[in-house]
Amino acid sequence: MTNTLSKVIIGIMGPATTTKAILDHAYELGQLIANERFIVLTGGTNLGVMNEALKGAKSVGGLTIGILKDDHVNNMSQYIDIPIVTGLGSARNNINVLTSSIVVACGIGIGTASEVALALKAKKDVILLCSTEESCAFFKSLHPSKVWVASEPVQVLKLIKNLLLAEN
Amino acid sequence: MTNTLSKVIIGIMGPATTTKAILDHAYELGQLIANERFIVLTGGTNLGVMNEALKGAKSVGGLTIGILKDDHVNNMSQYIDIPIVTGLGSARNNINVLTSSIVVACGIGIGTASEVALALKAKKDVILLCSTEESCAFFKSLHPSKVWVASEPVQVLKLIKNLLLAEN
Amino acid sequence: MTNTLSKVIIGIMGPATTTKAILDHAYELGQLIANERFIVLTGGTNLGVMNEALKGAKSVGGLTIGILKDDHVNNMSQYIDIPIVTGLGSARNNINVLTSSIVVACGIGIGTASEVALALKAKKDVILLCSTEESCAFFKSLHPSKVWVASEPVQVLKLIKNLLLAEN
Amino acid sequence: MTNTLSKVIIGIMGPATTTKAILDHAYELGQLIANERFIVLTGGTNLGVMNEALKGAKSVGGLTIGILKDDHVNNMSQYIDIPIVTGLGSARNNINVLTSSIVVACGIGIGTASEVALALKAKKDVILLCSTEESCAFFKSLHPSKVWVASEPVQVLKLIKNLLLAEN
Repeated sequence: MTNTLSKVIIGIMGPATTTKAILDHAYELGQLIANERFIVLTGGTNLGVMNEALKGAKSVGGLTIGILKDDHVNNMSQYIDIPIVTGLGSARNNINVLTSSIVVACGIGIGTASEVALALKAKKDVILLCSTEESCAFFKSLHPSKVWVASEPVQVLKLIKNLLLAEN
Repeated sequence: MTNTLSKVIIGIMGPATTTKAILDHAYELGQLIANERFIVLTGGTNLGVMNEALKGAKSVGGLTIGILKDDHVNNMSQYIDIPIVTGLGSARNNINVLTSSIVVACGIGIGTASEVALALKAKKDVILLCSTEESCAFFKSLHPSKVWVASEPVQVLKLIKNLLLAEN
Repeated sequence: MTNTLSKVIIGIMGPATTTKAILDHAYELGQLIANERFIVLTGGTNLGVMNEALKGAKSVGGLTIGILKDDHVNNMSQYIDIPIVTGLGSARNNINVLTSSIVVACGIGIGTASEVALALKAKKDVILLCSTEESCAFFKSLHPSKVWVASEPVQVLKLIKNLLLAEN
Repeated sequence: MTNTLSKVIIGIMGPATTTKAILDHAYELGQLIANERFIVLTGGTNLGVMNEALKGAKSVGGLTIGILKDDHVNNMSQYIDIPIVTGLGSARNNINVLTSSIVVACGIGIGTASEVALALKAKKDVILLCSTEESCAFFKSLHPSKVWVASEPVQVLKLIKNLLLAEN
């Protein structure tokens, strides 16, 4: 790609409903990634991991993208700079992963699982943060060399940096 | 739904590359489902589980649908009656599951995993045939009441019939 | 395409709200096309041209497909054999035209105009039946060799047959 | 919408191949819109109106989005800050218009015509710049109150400002 303008986009995926520990991780992850001047991308809903990751990114002045599944902006997070209105429902999950250089799954749920699988299909690296044992075992079995496991946001950031270096 | 014309559509998902045992199961599954006069739907490629399931269905005179990811028909299975040309890439996986009453995953792979997750997201029942231990454990953990496990095509057919009865 | 099973699919596009004359034409068109054993495809809503074309096709025992924009079947026409549930909103218009060998616009409206343009983009022949002067002049100016104008359903059928012959 | 972060996004649509006069207008339009600190969105290809509008916007330090039809970034304009990778082919045209507050068609072609129609379907205002007589007559006939005609980029900017004022 000869485009030198476009910045690195990191996708943070995760459930709309989850534990406080995972929400806190999402917020911290948004902060850490935005601090590196990477763009934070999520599914854009005003709920759960999506909302916290965007909120964290904005807390340090980052740039944020929300890929909305609706054909309107009524349910979007207030922490989105660039709302992309797709109207595609869950089919927009594939845009989330195609647009991201690296995909981080913070926690796990049904929608997040589809994004992890679509990301692997699109040959993207995926980092599982605070995922369940079953989830890590499953995705590792599907594609051992593209699935990375982390238990803390700082580990995720380190993995992102290493993966980006290896790409270039 | 007051539409009395539309027949039951069963989606058979599965990898493009897999073992002979799973391909044989896909073929038999296509036969068994078509014998019940249900329509067999797959991703429509001329490879692997998709092709075998359609071939099995046509071997007993069934009606078959392929939801093609390409914007052309060059790589479609020759066993499709109704090719739906989407041009959406992997985003078409969501159409596969929305259009199916029940989704069967025959074997497992990255694309199939995305379809299982999207099916659960769309509140569809999913039957895992010949899946791996990791796959069964993971999807059961995501949505215990909608994931069913089978080791033989005849078991799948029995599950389909029971689930359709329970819906009506 | 080496697939000898798949039958010719003719897309009939048209507004949800229109005049009785155009609705009658849609019904007759559905009949004429189904009589040739071509499959009739529409956007699948239980309204206007879509519903009448499907109803006409079923009145002579034809096979019908509806490409639904919703992620459910609640508003679909009762004259659909194969409902394809896309959940894509208006983005599904591109599937309508990619899946059809030839696209007929019966009457004209905003959605239909998008389908005519997308069909031309996909290099499909388009037949405008009972279109407005402005519509015919515009689309002819965009792509003179792919836009055909008709004022009666029987003319449309004749054009379809000639175009299919020319393709093969 | 309570999101106060997200800026106004203006979509500039237009053909990949066109006259020098229209390309110059696209460039100027990109400049004028970016000067107002509105975000410029296009289909993102490195050709024609799309490329010129983005180039104009970047020449004054604007922020630019490209909604790519491909599942990769190989053919994207070098003037994109935020590349959204959809992999949807022409179905991405609906995202272009849903994401834009107002759609400007600079020149006209098949793809652009589909975007104008989809924009009207999504109840967006559309401004036709340097369009043909047939195009203006047709789209005015489809939706008189939402279609605006301009012959110079400065007129477009004035219309955009008035329309945004009227919305709020």
